[in-house]
Amino acid sequence: MTGFVSLVGAGPGDADHLTLGALKALQSAQAVLYDALVSEDIIALAPAKCVKICVGKRGDRLSVPQDKTNALMVRLAKKGLHVVRLKGGDPSVFGRVEEERDYLEAHNIAHKTLPGVTAASAAAAQFAFPLTHRGEARSVTFLTGRTKDGSIDLKETAVCDPQTSLVFYMSSHNAAHIEARLIAAGRSANTPIVIVENAGRAHARALKSTLSQLATQVSDAAYEGPVLIGVGEAFRFARLDASATLNACQKLQMQAQTA
Amino acid sequence: MTGFVSLVGAGPGDADHLTLGALKALQSAQAVLYDALVSEDIIALAPAKCVKICVGKRGDRLSVPQDKTNALMVRLAKKGLHVVRLKGGDPSVFGRVEEERDYLEAHNIAHKTLPGVTAASAAAAQFAFPLTHRGEARSVTFLTGRTKDGSIDLKETAVCDPQTSLVFYMSSHNAAHIEARLIAAGRSANTPIVIVENAGRAHARALKSTLSQLATQVSDAAYEGPVLIGVGEAFRFARLDASATLNACQKLQMQAQTA
Repeated sequence: MTGFVSLVGAGPGDADHLTLGALKALQSAQAVLYDALVSEDIIALAPAKCVKICVGKRGDRLSVPQDKTNALMVRLAKKGLHVVRLKGGDPSVFGRVEEERDYLEAHNIAHKTLPGVTAASAAAAQFAFPLTHRGEARSVTFLTGRTKDGSIDLKETAVCDPQTSLVFYMSSHNAAHIEARLIAAGRSANTPIVIVENAGRAHARALKSTLSQLATQVSDAAYEGPVLIGVGEAFRFARLDASATLNACQKLQMQAQTA
Repeated sequence: MTGFVSLVGAGPGDADHLTLGALKALQSAQAVLYDALVSEDIIALAPAKCVKICVGKRGDRLSVPQDKTNALMVRLAKKGLHVVRLKGGDPSVFGRVEEERDYLEAHNIAHKTLPGVTAASAAAAQFAFPLTHRGEARSVTFLTGRTKDGSIDLKETAVCDPQTSLVFYMSSHNAAHIEARLIAAGRSANTPIVIVENAGRAHARALKSTLSQLATQVSDAAYEGPVLIGVGEAFRFARLDASATLNACQKLQMQAQTA
């Protein structure tokens, strides 16, 4: 009997962002192929006897090439296993999920996809800024500094409407280019920005600044984790002390539970 | 002692989309204020003795005005309760969460925000289309047909880049306007579209068509649930029989669990 593949969004970072559906899929997994950015406490939710293989994807820096991951999924599914392909964030947003579905279908493997919390949503909640806001940010666009050929081209992209919140994924290495192109496209140098490293994790850090400082700030921060860059009016609301508020809330919550 | 408010994303629809963090918040809630679109099986996860109040928001059709919801949150928190403000989807995307945080801070109420799966991600997973796709859809924009003054203005919005996937939330009543404006802005009449009603729920339905058929399709379908409209190349991948695949997967999964 041929198995099947669940393409599952793990959300960004901590297990609190995992959905109940993703948890169920993991608990019934017989093999898990996971991205490097999926945290260990999430992997630990799969059964102990389940095969667990890191396919090491981080941004576009693949330690396992996509075609090897594809072939591995098919090989394991053809053994009759329920394979969970566990992806950081939401599989449909910069997750290359369509390439994997396409490959599975070419090999007659049944599949389903489960959504996850995308990094922008996690960052927004963690540092208490909205992605849209009535009257000031009527839409939100998720972009990446990477394209198939490695370059970034913003000139045709939705960058000139000051009422669009822009969130750049995996783009810290392109910060100078983003800053220059957005200003050239008409965005004010004073547009609020937020830069979040390790969104959705307990050790996330964020800073607020303005567009004209983007490249300098990224360069000074020397980020090692995944970085999101938000550009737009909505990001002026970011509360960098949100974790302090969070801790106060958690203390109250514990008191409520023990009361 | 003053309580606090958790602003929590419930995801769109079924409890499978709830995060583990949202579940924990609900389980420690002493009062829950929930949107009309949050499903009953999610509300049922809160403690039996918890106060549960529907604040009836659906799209912009408020049955409880926003200021009453705000005042209610504060009144309950000032009684020392852990109040969970349970919102459909992700609170940061068209969720008016900033207005609620602002009000809470003006009344010295501690708060935290928990992210949720946004409807576009759930629809994409359910009907197996990507929101971004290398080489064809390098960004995704979430828009709404509604603005503060009730009109929709696409002319400054990111609509001219054929490589941006557009997802319109709560916009079925503006379908004719969206179709006309996008074509006028240069999008091809043959651009693939997908229309999804009740994304993230078991009874969701979806159809694929092209931009020139958008208004007709929406009119013919006579939607009653919340509707998402996707416009862009990525949506040609939508698998309308995804639920069939899903059911086949679930059967295999059950077999795997009982084996």
